[in-house]
Amino acid sequence: MAGAATAVRSKGDVATAIAILRQRFGDRVQTGEAIRRQHSHTLTWIASEPPDAVVWPTSTEEVAEIVRIAAAQQVPIIPFGAGTSLEGHVNAPFGGISLDLQQMNAILSVNQLDLDATVQAGVSRKALNDHLRDLGLFFPVDPGAEEATIGGMAATRASGTTAVRYGTMRDNVLGVTAVMADGAIVRTSRRARKSSAGYDLTRLMVGSEGTLGIFTEVSVRLYGIPESIVAAVCPFPTLEGAVNSVIQAIQLGLGLARSELLDEILIGAINKHAKLGLEERPTLFLEFHGTDVSARDQIARFEEIARSEGALRFDWASREEDRRKLWKARHEAYWAIKSAYPGRDALATDVCVPISRLAECISETKADIEQCGLIASVLGHVGDGNFHTQPMIDMANAREVEATKGFLTRLAERAMRMDGTCTGEHGVGQGKIKYLEAEHGAGVEVMRRIKAALDPDGLLNPGKILPQR
Amino acid sequence: MAGAATAVRSKGDVATAIAILRQRFGDRVQTGEAIRRQHSHTLTWIASEPPDAVVWPTSTEEVAEIVRIAAAQQVPIIPFGAGTSLEGHVNAPFGGISLDLQQMNAILSVNQLDLDATVQAGVSRKALNDHLRDLGLFFPVDPGAEEATIGGMAATRASGTTAVRYGTMRDNVLGVTAVMADGAIVRTSRRARKSSAGYDLTRLMVGSEGTLGIFTEVSVRLYGIPESIVAAVCPFPTLEGAVNSVIQAIQLGLGLARSELLDEILIGAINKHAKLGLEERPTLFLEFHGTDVSARDQIARFEEIARSEGALRFDWASREEDRRKLWKARHEAYWAIKSAYPGRDALATDVCVPISRLAECISETKADIEQCGLIASVLGHVGDGNFHTQPMIDMANAREVEATKGFLTRLAERAMRMDGTCTGEHGVGQGKIKYLEAEHGAGVEVMRRIKAALDPDGLLNPGKILPQR
Repeated sequence: MAGAATAVRSKGDVATAIAILRQRFGDRVQTGEAIRRQHSHTLTWIASEPPDAVVWPTSTEEVAEIVRIAAAQQVPIIPFGAGTSLEGHVNAPFGGISLDLQQMNAILSVNQLDLDATVQAGVSRKALNDHLRDLGLFFPVDPGAEEATIGGMAATRASGTTAVRYGTMRDNVLGVTAVMADGAIVRTSRRARKSSAGYDLTRLMVGSEGTLGIFTEVSVRLYGIPESIVAAVCPFPTLEGAVNSVIQAIQLGLGLARSELLDEILIGAINKHAKLGLEERPTLFLEFHGTDVSARDQIARFEEIARSEGALRFDWASREEDRRKLWKARHEAYWAIKSAYPGRDALATDVCVPISRLAECISETKADIEQCGLIASVLGHVGDGNFHTQPMIDMANAREVEATKGFLTRLAERAMRMDGTCTGEHGVGQGKIKYLEAEHGAGVEVMRRIKAALDPDGLLNPGKILPQR
Repeated sequence: MAGAATAVRSKGDVATAIAILRQRFGDRVQTGEAIRRQHSHTLTWIASEPPDAVVWPTSTEEVAEIVRIAAAQQVPIIPFGAGTSLEGHVNAPFGGISLDLQQMNAILSVNQLDLDATVQAGVSRKALNDHLRDLGLFFPVDPGAEEATIGGMAATRASGTTAVRYGTMRDNVLGVTAVMADGAIVRTSRRARKSSAGYDLTRLMVGSEGTLGIFTEVSVRLYGIPESIVAAVCPFPTLEGAVNSVIQAIQLGLGLARSELLDEILIGAINKHAKLGLEERPTLFLEFHGTDVSARDQIARFEEIARSEGALRFDWASREEDRRKLWKARHEAYWAIKSAYPGRDALATDVCVPISRLAECISETKADIEQCGLIASVLGHVGDGNFHTQPMIDMANAREVEATKGFLTRLAERAMRMDGTCTGEHGVGQGKIKYLEAEHGAGVEVMRRIKAALDPDGLLNPGKILPQR
């Protein structure tokens, strides 16, 4: 699966680079095998490709220094946040230095009036939200993993359950400080909410997966914690009913804060894992944010829509304890399904289509899963048209592994045929490189030129995003 | 004011390019002076620099053909929409071919379920909204000029009165089809609402002002026309009260759809022009969108906030006729102020700061206006921290012209000092080039490299955005 990544090592002088780094950073440079392995660990079946060394900088200036040292020896640099990426983003297919940003975990400023914060790249979203809670503020982007760093989330253009209301990292990053391939430090934007002053370097950097620059600081948008948050669970006899309800709610501008679709398999696993008694049907997990009045209005309107689309029940919970229980179950879906199939590995997939094609795309995908005899549940961020299937694979079974590979290719092709994308929020990394030409056509050449212009020696996270020629 | 633009003409063979274009496009190539002048007409005091010829393509393929013909003769290409830009974007400082996209005015598709539309670049926002109205949909970005084209708005990253709720062109363009400098046709994105598949070419192209590629088609987000739209007018004794009210409303997540601040001078001019009797104070023009219940809730909550910030009155109108009258007055502010000072030219300015600095930035700016003896009103998109002053200049008065130049520089520097930008929504064009280095520092070099990588001969709208070295 590692695709384009081969065993070719860096042509540069890694040993010299490490010696110089050691001299400068002492114990903050490590080359032990366990640490190197840990820094290339992937959550999927992409094989680990460890770096030659790991270094822990504590400031933007140190990152710039490390980049210059590596560049002088023509050695690759691979930025590392929390290692929760899913497509081999932190692998070192050409060796090199893993630059671990977890010591850069300071919250530099929170501007309550402007609703923004600037943090070092290694701050986790949990740490940021813990810090914000007492101020009545929150950072909404929720990719699941609590320890995911803001820098890593910006680098992969992460999103998750709340994108339907609050947008993705594309929408919520106001600017980054990045160290470029030549060691230059660039601040992509000031703190104004909008600007027309030149090329949008912020958006170019967000989602560039460490291949154009290394983020050291990130400024993000914040939001006031809503006066009222209400969660609801709503099972449907059909997938279409669930999807159509969300489409109508969006058209009405109801402003759903979350609209997650769990298929009957996933609900079954959650029931066992969290000891719940949910009906085992395609089910929407919803959340409404607003003032007391507007949240109540949203719920009433949504219930009306859902009933007209055949909803079987509509249960809502405004008490924080009940909400927490519900969303805890949703967030543990991965573990629920994993514990239901011991001995099997879970593989995360991620495609996104226009919402009008979502029910069709999921139905075709479920038929495909059945046809190839795989075990896989479906989880969708309905409002975005984004969904995941999670095949549970017996890696010792070669036939099953082969079947899964075929399934993955058909899944990506199906999404693209429906005017969608091969990745809605996980990023390209190594795993999705093979689909990029099919998705972007001549756009890939534009991306290649930008990469060559900003990183002419190809030292920033090589072997990611762009197909080799 | 044209700054970097000089009288140097293209080194390419313009005559040959025009001859080849004539052979191919016949009467759709024009070289008459009136037409050439019209295609470099600017709404500000930047001097017109006409192109050598104007050509009207009707398809993406024709645009690609024209670009290749021009490139073969090393002749510049300047894309032209409706000519409503404000910073000399359509000038031809090095001569060349103005590529007028107004015949590319087809609405190619509207997807009601997905809330998106794909249009040719020459479609005006008015034409799009006229088309959408019967479908119960609308395209929200509102820069003022009704005839502004979707392509031009995307090229300048336009926004306007509704950005506080619906975002700018950055947020509302789903993808563009662009002809690149070598004639390649790139579709930057498919129709999925989000994607993590590689560099964000859409956002790179939006705001690139025709310097990286020529947009021929644009896909945009649409919204359902809200069930309830209510407008309100709310005068304050002080600027701070108005700004603080909006800050609180945003923190509460009220979702103001519009929040425009007009100063007492502008209110005075509007009173005369539209025969209204508004109190001549700093005044908010507001709009609330929602369901009947949520719009009422928003109004009640906002009124409460506004009163606590010292609002003098709070008048609201939900009847379409009353709303139209109000917003017509607001949209005619430019003409109101112009007719109040006959014989003077209006100069549009445009800076944006973090909202916490907005009142301070406007106050300092008003003091500066007074100090240099200028006549200028203030109009702010408060929710974005974006505001315009409009000095009314007697161009025959050299001292006044000089004073204005000094004022403009101080205004841009003031905004940047407050962590803001020299242009919130008008773009760089020729007029703001001189501030780019101060605003972006090392980022300008990144922009230059991208430009050189994608347009190595510098033929796409040369003399815009990037400072010459």
